[in-house]
Amino acid sequence: MNDARRYHDLPSPFAMKRGGQLHAARVAYETWGQLDTDAGNAVLILTGLSPSAHAAANADDPSAGWWEGMVGPGKAIDTDRWFVICVNSLGSDKGSTCPASIDPATGEPYRLSFPELSLEDVAQAAHSVVTALGIGQLACLIGCSMGGMSALAYMLLHPGSVRTHISVDTAPQAQPFAIAIRSLQREAIRLDPQWQEGRYSDDAYPEMGMSIARKLGVITYRSAMEWNGRFARIRLNPEQRDDDPFGLEFEVESYLEGHARRFVHTFDPNSYLYLSRASDWFDVSEYGNGSIREGLKRIHVERAMVIGVSTDILFPLEQQEQIAEGLEAAGAQVDFVALDSPQGHDAFLVDIDNYSRAIGGFLSSLQA
Amino acid sequence: MNDARRYHDLPSPFAMKRGGQLHAARVAYETWGQLDTDAGNAVLILTGLSPSAHAAANADDPSAGWWEGMVGPGKAIDTDRWFVICVNSLGSDKGSTCPASIDPATGEPYRLSFPELSLEDVAQAAHSVVTALGIGQLACLIGCSMGGMSALAYMLLHPGSVRTHISVDTAPQAQPFAIAIRSLQREAIRLDPQWQEGRYSDDAYPEMGMSIARKLGVITYRSAMEWNGRFARIRLNPEQRDDDPFGLEFEVESYLEGHARRFVHTFDPNSYLYLSRASDWFDVSEYGNGSIREGLKRIHVERAMVIGVSTDILFPLEQQEQIAEGLEAAGAQVDFVALDSPQGHDAFLVDIDNYSRAIGGFLSSLQA
Repeated sequence: MNDARRYHDLPSPFAMKRGGQLHAARVAYETWGQLDTDAGNAVLILTGLSPSAHAAANADDPSAGWWEGMVGPGKAIDTDRWFVICVNSLGSDKGSTCPASIDPATGEPYRLSFPELSLEDVAQAAHSVVTALGIGQLACLIGCSMGGMSALAYMLLHPGSVRTHISVDTAPQAQPFAIAIRSLQREAIRLDPQWQEGRYSDDAYPEMGMSIARKLGVITYRSAMEWNGRFARIRLNPEQRDDDPFGLEFEVESYLEGHARRFVHTFDPNSYLYLSRASDWFDVSEYGNGSIREGLKRIHVERAMVIGVSTDILFPLEQQEQIAEGLEAAGAQVDFVALDSPQGHDAFLVDIDNYSRAIGGFLSSLQA
Repeated sequence: MNDARRYHDLPSPFAMKRGGQLHAARVAYETWGQLDTDAGNAVLILTGLSPSAHAAANADDPSAGWWEGMVGPGKAIDTDRWFVICVNSLGSDKGSTCPASIDPATGEPYRLSFPELSLEDVAQAAHSVVTALGIGQLACLIGCSMGGMSALAYMLLHPGSVRTHISVDTAPQAQPFAIAIRSLQREAIRLDPQWQEGRYSDDAYPEMGMSIARKLGVITYRSAMEWNGRFARIRLNPEQRDDDPFGLEFEVESYLEGHARRFVHTFDPNSYLYLSRASDWFDVSEYGNGSIREGLKRIHVERAMVIGVSTDILFPLEQQEQIAEGLEAAGAQVDFVALDSPQGHDAFLVDIDNYSRAIGGFLSSLQA
């Protein structure tokens, strides 16, 4: 198999954790590199809330991917050695079945009739792709941000399916600060009159709500420390300002506006709501009688690397420590990497040097 | 003079820092205790963005004030000894002239025709009250949060008018993280279709925008640490939930909703916009050729206490350190108090024990 962009049909019906089922559902995925004949060199990447399966350029799509610096020949996730798969989360509108998809039962988009989505469902859909590719055990499962929680679900639901694990900037459960932020993002979308209980169109689209949600996201994905150095109190030039009496004045405001404009129409608002809520719901402690540690102890991998960053306010470093301790208690050999990157939660997308060193070092140390 | 609620007429016209002027403007203030014949025992409190002048109960208004635990007979700010004044900020709708006030030139509310407001204007209005009361020099000027910045403006604009200073959870300038948060709060209000460029009414009121702004405020006024202990992942009881598919589910969401509901109709949205922007604009370094330290060195007080809290994400502790260092460089004897209160920026309103100990200790040590 060459580098490719593909779709995988999920078993139909596909039963969802919280009830409900999907018919004729599919997930988009992309691959890089060659699968060994014994299928022992597979690496699966599970993504954050909004990225697509396009982690890096490939033959079907030569544009740069969201983790271009990390995935490729000779890079940390070396596609000369590994067969790398990235799956677009079930429920995301980047090719997978999601609230914007047509419900075959009605011929209309699901919108809010899409069944309640959990990260366990995201994990099950990804596992279905891996199984269909003939891979019995992943050499490594990598999960970033929300994808790190999906990865924990994957390992809990499929014991023995993962040999090693890399956990990146994630958490075993959402803490109330993260829930509060995501709840407010969802509220901004839901209160937008154009949202119309999920029945928006391209012509009447909840731009306002999506813009506020995205800006709040960016504020919590980065760090105050980074911004002190990057923006300080620099003003826009007068010609860059608008006439609005409360319009953009500081560079940091313009930066957020740029992020929001690029995002608003590239992610389906209902998909955002479903994946955001799934992130709030996920909780490893459900697998351990209310104990995070006991839940994590049910995960059995040979080795793990757990990476976090001290400037992350959304998934604070103490939560990565919990994951590392739990996986170690379960018997894994665990490397815990605490970085001081200034970029906050998004450091895994920006501080490629440090993340490459950690992830590349871990993967290259794995026995064939 | 007894405890009282009063109004002070500002000189008319009252010239604003950034241009424009107000006619027949006034500020509301309240007082507690007795002014000595030599007017040497006056303490002025400048408030955060939304509180009124009602810091504590008094004869005209026996209801509890926003700093009730701190101000009163025998309390840290002891009204048996001190004559205490609290001024409602110019531009705030708690009795002072603000964008919701009637413009005498038109007979209509100012709304967005209110001149651009700065914290220097807030300070000038407060100084006008103090002067009118026959006080040549304050024994102590106390500023909390935004009021701490107004206090710095007060001392910069009126050298010699303040003998000692207590700086509480504030900053010498807004950093980009704080600007980003406030900009997003303003955007939520401005994007609310009911805002109508400031021409809302009680019947068509930007509740949605105000609710989002307040929730975002509360998120940044508190701390993730406090919420981990207080809310964790506790769910509402089923009967407390609404039927909305993305409605309230976690206690932290209900807590934010309660805060928003209590706030939305008690603060004029345009006043909020003006005071929020004034907070972004204030910058001590404007008084020091671009240097915070040089700006602060122009403030001359005998003694100061600078208090901050390690869990404050809006006004981080390093900013209180800057204030302490600058005032010390200017020749003041400075006590720097770094607290570990879990409540974040709002600790000064909640952790009365620790703030009382610091503020009460400082004030009681002052010579008569």
